[in-house]
Amino acid sequence: MKSLFRKREGEVSPSDMSTFGNFARQFAEIRAFIDRGIEAFCGESSPLVPPRLRDSMAYSLLAGGKRLRPALCLKGAELFGIEGERAFPLALSFEMIHTASLIHDDLPAMDDDVLRRGKATNHVLFGEATAILAGDALMALAFEYPLRELPEKGIAPERICSALSLLASALGPSGICGGQVLDMDGELLSEETPWRIARQKTAVLLSAAVTTGAILGGADEGAQASLRAYGNHLGTAFQIVDDILDVTSTAEELGKTPGKDAAQKKKTFVAVYGMEKALSLASEQTALAVTALENLPGDTAFFSGLADYLTERTF
Amino acid sequence: MKSLFRKREGEVSPSDMSTFGNFARQFAEIRAFIDRGIEAFCGESSPLVPPRLRDSMAYSLLAGGKRLRPALCLKGAELFGIEGERAFPLALSFEMIHTASLIHDDLPAMDDDVLRRGKATNHVLFGEATAILAGDALMALAFEYPLRELPEKGIAPERICSALSLLASALGPSGICGGQVLDMDGELLSEETPWRIARQKTAVLLSAAVTTGAILGGADEGAQASLRAYGNHLGTAFQIVDDILDVTSTAEELGKTPGKDAAQKKKTFVAVYGMEKALSLASEQTALAVTALENLPGDTAFFSGLADYLTERTF
Repeated sequence: MKSLFRKREGEVSPSDMSTFGNFARQFAEIRAFIDRGIEAFCGESSPLVPPRLRDSMAYSLLAGGKRLRPALCLKGAELFGIEGERAFPLALSFEMIHTASLIHDDLPAMDDDVLRRGKATNHVLFGEATAILAGDALMALAFEYPLRELPEKGIAPERICSALSLLASALGPSGICGGQVLDMDGELLSEETPWRIARQKTAVLLSAAVTTGAILGGADEGAQASLRAYGNHLGTAFQIVDDILDVTSTAEELGKTPGKDAAQKKKTFVAVYGMEKALSLASEQTALAVTALENLPGDTAFFSGLADYLTERTF
Repeated sequence: MKSLFRKREGEVSPSDMSTFGNFARQFAEIRAFIDRGIEAFCGESSPLVPPRLRDSMAYSLLAGGKRLRPALCLKGAELFGIEGERAFPLALSFEMIHTASLIHDDLPAMDDDVLRRGKATNHVLFGEATAILAGDALMALAFEYPLRELPEKGIAPERICSALSLLASALGPSGICGGQVLDMDGELLSEETPWRIARQKTAVLLSAAVTTGAILGGADEGAQASLRAYGNHLGTAFQIVDDILDVTSTAEELGKTPGKDAAQKKKTFVAVYGMEKALSLASEQTALAVTALENLPGDTAFFSGLADYLTERTF
């Protein structure tokens, strides 16, 4: 894996390696846990769900991806004493909402993309109408599933309400739905645009994922604020790196069509600030994410490891 | 208003008239209350919501309609002692979900309709991409708004969870999202098709609206079952009448393009059973809806009045 950040090249010490090895192991474990959970979920079936709708939802849910949002949710819950099994219904909600937003973003009327995670996009395979409804159904399931499962796992109703309130606002018109409109419009002033798009299109959901996990475990206001700040900086760094990779990567590396931002004249960090400045902004946001962890209780090594990993990624 | 049901012609007694007058007044009052609430809601605005998205959502929310789902929700709540102001955030959720589903159903990839409630459909005015996102955002708001507002109005979190769980499952893959797939596919055996479409596309949301209202007021299992049954029969009758009106009405009367069901070879009640039988099935379902009210406490005259009103409607 080649690093995007030259200042880091050749600077990996043995202790860094062991820290990274530890993070990499934890991340692989939690991704495997999430993948098993998603497979089990997709195997369940109600006779009321039309087979084509079920197949279309399962296709996109099982298409892979980093499982970043559910991992953040599970680790946020773990930090406050809620083990994976109990937090899983909420963690899955974030993957369902993320998947729904990708299905809709890829539609011909939106970004018109035929390739996602190296596979045909949902509407290419199932048709536009089913893809629209699969996205809608996944959004509904993102509420239906935790509202059915979390009470049975003994999570207090006021924590469920509080967590789902944050989830809903991260999805809604001031969250990723609004972010996607901004991304398509590009009508704002150029300096503000990439920050606001990063915040509303990406950071808001990462931030909600880690914070709601902690809410299930009864995190207080201070801890919630720290995790929100962590998620916002992490998400902004993530979006900056995405903008960079859209310029520097091949379709094979990326699993989706590269170069689309420039072709669509999108106001990305690279377009607004240039490549050099975008790289340093990504480092800065990553450092701010790690700093936000300082006042949290317990072991936050996974979260700082994730911040480093995401800025170093090449996909 | 000409009646669809010949057996009723000339049979209206003075006491019927006064019962209907009473229902008509109550329905007009509650619709005015809902309309005022929706206008106030659309007037609120977060700076994070892009103006075009806000305008697109407000356009469809304010486009009129019978406000049937929020009225059912408010009346269900009232039956169990929750006044309109306190139940309104949940009632509005049902109108938001209904509106979102109409926006998406009208898209070119779905029913491709340019006229709804006598006005241009959302995508005709705002473009497909914004229409898709306005639908998504309204679905998210349908959870965000009650999750924010209901706790502040002193509704217990376990009742909020229980009500939203039913709302979410009415929207999801075994609810109206699944119903729309069935409606487009028409792959089922013909006798079962219209019943299942009526149930999943229409009845499930009417049933959830009235039942969740009652849940806010602490209705027991028995009362919930009665209201679910009422809503299911009411919704089925409503769909049968819709199928009939698609054949018998003009665009002006209907506010949308008539004759589309036949043009799209949809398996409606009229297509499967013929007009005569469809009319008698609508009467039958209306009678079953009224019967389901028998064991409920309090004054259920509004609900029986609504059942009669909906089968007699010409729009």
